[in-house]
Amino acid sequence: MSFLSFFLGEKKKTASVAKERLQIILAHERVGRNAAEPDYLPELQRELIAVIGKYIKIDPKDIKVNLERQDDLEVLEVKIELPEKADRPGKLSVQTG
Amino acid sequence: MSFLSFFLGEKKKTASVAKERLQIILAHERVGRNAAEPDYLPELQRELIAVIGKYIKIDPKDIKVNLERQDDLEVLEVKIELPEKADRPGKLSVQTG
Repeated sequence: MSFLSFFLGEKKKTASVAKERLQIILAHERVGRNAAEPDYLPELQRELIAVIGKYIKIDPKDIKVNLERQDDLEVLEVKIELPEKADRPGKLSVQTG
Repeated sequence: MSFLSFFLGEKKKTASVAKERLQIILAHERVGRNAAEPDYLPELQRELIAVIGKYIKIDPKDIKVNLERQDDLEVLEVKIELPEKADRPGKLSVQTG
């Protein structure tokens, strides 16, 4: 099963809510000897959201974060509900400088 | 099904290769009226990889990118195979300034 079909399946369940959404999944699979190393995912997550905020206007209250761990697998899920289009800046006005 | 179980399922298939891996999934679900807007995911992806490179040493040749689209759903998948530990800088020496 591909991620596309995974998300299409997820989508079906919430089809009644026609909101624009962005989801970021960070999955880190460590090999045994590194499993005890410090966890940088939460810090990385903050930076990733900052980068995405350059492209899309994000309201911090619309961000939901979920971190799951099992064995040597760590999955960080960030769900962002995007504001209605009227509230957003045009996507072409990206600041790249 | 959670993302954790999704990745655990994926992992089983490749359990014989004991490599450390990082996967980033960006899923963007657009509502109909926005579906024709310009696509910023590829640019965003470059920036995300740059951010991750601050935490982990990444070799560009170990990055695999896959973009899938269906209807108003767009899923960008970035798979990164991390180098052996000996080649990596310590994770605590993160440059934040």
